[in-house]
Amino acid sequence: MTTELRIGIVGLGNMGSGHAAYLAAGEVPGGVLAAVSDVREERLSWAKAAFGDSVKTYTSAREMFDSGEVDGVLICTPHYSHPEETIAALQAGLHVLVEKPAGVYTKQVKIMNEAAAASGRVFGIMFNQRTNPLYRKMRELIQTGELGDVRRINWIVTDWYRSQSYYDSGGWRATWEGEGGGVLMNQSPHNLDLWQWVTGLMPTRIRAFCGFGKHRDIEVENDVTAYAEYSNGATGVFITSTVDAPGTNRLEITGDRGKLVAEDGKLTFWRLRTPESEFNRTYAGGFGSPETWRIDVPVPGGEPNQHRAVTRNWVDAIAGRAPLESPGEEGIKGLALANAMLLSAWTDGWVELPLDDEQYYRELQARIAASTAGKDQAAAGRTLDVKGTH
Amino acid sequence: MTTELRIGIVGLGNMGSGHAAYLAAGEVPGGVLAAVSDVREERLSWAKAAFGDSVKTYTSAREMFDSGEVDGVLICTPHYSHPEETIAALQAGLHVLVEKPAGVYTKQVKIMNEAAAASGRVFGIMFNQRTNPLYRKMRELIQTGELGDVRRINWIVTDWYRSQSYYDSGGWRATWEGEGGGVLMNQSPHNLDLWQWVTGLMPTRIRAFCGFGKHRDIEVENDVTAYAEYSNGATGVFITSTVDAPGTNRLEITGDRGKLVAEDGKLTFWRLRTPESEFNRTYAGGFGSPETWRIDVPVPGGEPNQHRAVTRNWVDAIAGRAPLESPGEEGIKGLALANAMLLSAWTDGWVELPLDDEQYYRELQARIAASTAGKDQAAAGRTLDVKGTH
Repeated sequence: MTTELRIGIVGLGNMGSGHAAYLAAGEVPGGVLAAVSDVREERLSWAKAAFGDSVKTYTSAREMFDSGEVDGVLICTPHYSHPEETIAALQAGLHVLVEKPAGVYTKQVKIMNEAAAASGRVFGIMFNQRTNPLYRKMRELIQTGELGDVRRINWIVTDWYRSQSYYDSGGWRATWEGEGGGVLMNQSPHNLDLWQWVTGLMPTRIRAFCGFGKHRDIEVENDVTAYAEYSNGATGVFITSTVDAPGTNRLEITGDRGKLVAEDGKLTFWRLRTPESEFNRTYAGGFGSPETWRIDVPVPGGEPNQHRAVTRNWVDAIAGRAPLESPGEEGIKGLALANAMLLSAWTDGWVELPLDDEQYYRELQARIAASTAGKDQAAAGRTLDVKGTH
Repeated sequence: MTTELRIGIVGLGNMGSGHAAYLAAGEVPGGVLAAVSDVREERLSWAKAAFGDSVKTYTSAREMFDSGEVDGVLICTPHYSHPEETIAALQAGLHVLVEKPAGVYTKQVKIMNEAAAASGRVFGIMFNQRTNPLYRKMRELIQTGELGDVRRINWIVTDWYRSQSYYDSGGWRATWEGEGGGVLMNQSPHNLDLWQWVTGLMPTRIRAFCGFGKHRDIEVENDVTAYAEYSNGATGVFITSTVDAPGTNRLEITGDRGKLVAEDGKLTFWRLRTPESEFNRTYAGGFGSPETWRIDVPVPGGEPNQHRAVTRNWVDAIAGRAPLESPGEEGIKGLALANAMLLSAWTDGWVELPLDDEQYYRELQARIAASTAGKDQAAAGRTLDVKGTH
């Protein structure tokens, strides 16, 4: 092992190519792009041309894992194979940073997490939105008690516009077999992670409503409204969609001491001079309400390249220079929320958390079996420009 | 009949006293305060002192209806008696303007509407928020097609803060027997009316979740999250509460041609240069979305006293000078939404619209029968200062 972490990229699609580029540019101190793997020869040729001969290329991820040429890998393959590739890499003694989502169904991700626990390696997940100073600040205000007990969490995050041409760009896209879901599996995983990470709360049960192929010729969900209940009595609504133009991204969290709203990159805190519970206990008038101060919360500048920031932190964590900010084991939380939302829509009823992994797995398999998605498989290999996405 | 409409007020509680005051001050051209009725002698004494001997007083509403001293009445009694009083007044040949809500359950309100249709009199309802230029403008942008087909309607209207002391101020407050509900019956009726009036859409079914006595010692709902589906495929969320501090009032309506947001008294229109459906049909790229223009929509100044504006319009409609803006028969729409939300929470399932009136009536009666509300009935007569309320 050299003093620099030798990093391999598994899968040179949209995300993998991007990670390779900043690694090759030397933008992750302590880390170096050592190898890439992809089943498509043309992607490997592209990598050779882009990064030079010092970067090894493999058509097989397993071969790269066993090559002795890498110390850690970034898993950037399609969603379904994340757990399988992660387990293989960990068992080969490598550190792993996996792209979101952790997997497609929790049953599989649990096995991955067990493998990670047994491996003694550093296992991270690309929750790059956790580096966003806006959400970090919200989390801090909740963790330090500034907001008081959380009572309501409303997130309207419908700014994931995707046209039919986007869906048509890959035969695997927006199919039960190819992605295992739609907006919940591809676009919203960051939001679902932040929903629980910022608040520190997971719901006890969920009731969700999904539009499948709404205004689009796809079979999976692309419009979701979910209602959540929490053990402390709080409630929440999560709304996401790929067909709203323009969408909204507004996260509102109300607590006993006021309200936080993140919108348009700004964080506003309506702070009560006395907590609501105390005001209510002592107030003797008619229509009064607690005195409220509107505060523009200063949000520090963040790392402009959030993916790079996560990779840097993962490299630093491996070197023992920093705690890991996005542990891979936490990927199951947002995934459980996504699975619960789909299961609620499928069964037209409540879904309790923790989720029944086996039931979800069965229901998903039934949809894969019944799928009539007959897309042009030849388009599957096209790599889109992901600028402006997350 | 004089050339001026002689108006009687039924019930000198919070709202009735306010209506009497602006009428007595001559602020409704063509209308004059002629009489008031209330079962409480002290309220009639207050009226005599405030308005002089020219205003007749009655302890019985029926006596006032049959007196020949009034041509029209404002019904400002507790919610439950709105239909009964309205029917009696119409049958006595009087025009009627009823306070919101139209009643407490649709079964009763249907009978009221039939009586109104048969009466040939002008029957209005105090939906004073329909005079709000913000909502009038939103409605106009939808009616004229500027927004295109409505796809999503999210209203977070949680700024109905009420303390325990408010609820304790009247024994009838926030009980199944006294008000027939909580926030849906007392605070949100305007919002529920606007939800359908602004959009011109009634849902086909509703799934709602209610907190009963949340953070308050009351038996009725004071925290509601409702999900609605419409026949055109649109969906909506309506969130209301009396315990959020500070609350939010943000109405977002997305259509095929963009998005309208009303918040903080401002109306913003994100207008697409080409409708979403057209963009989606013709766009061939990857992650693109329609070009959007952010427009601050000018909102004309409105009548500062919205109640007075509704009363003026009702008087003008009776005189044939203007169309009636808030027909009493339309009160059933928002009430049906409120009833559907409660019924969904009670039955823990979907409620189809039009509502099953008989089922709702039975379920409400069961709650009245099972009620353990044992409040201080002596406080029932206290009149609160309603400044700042609606």
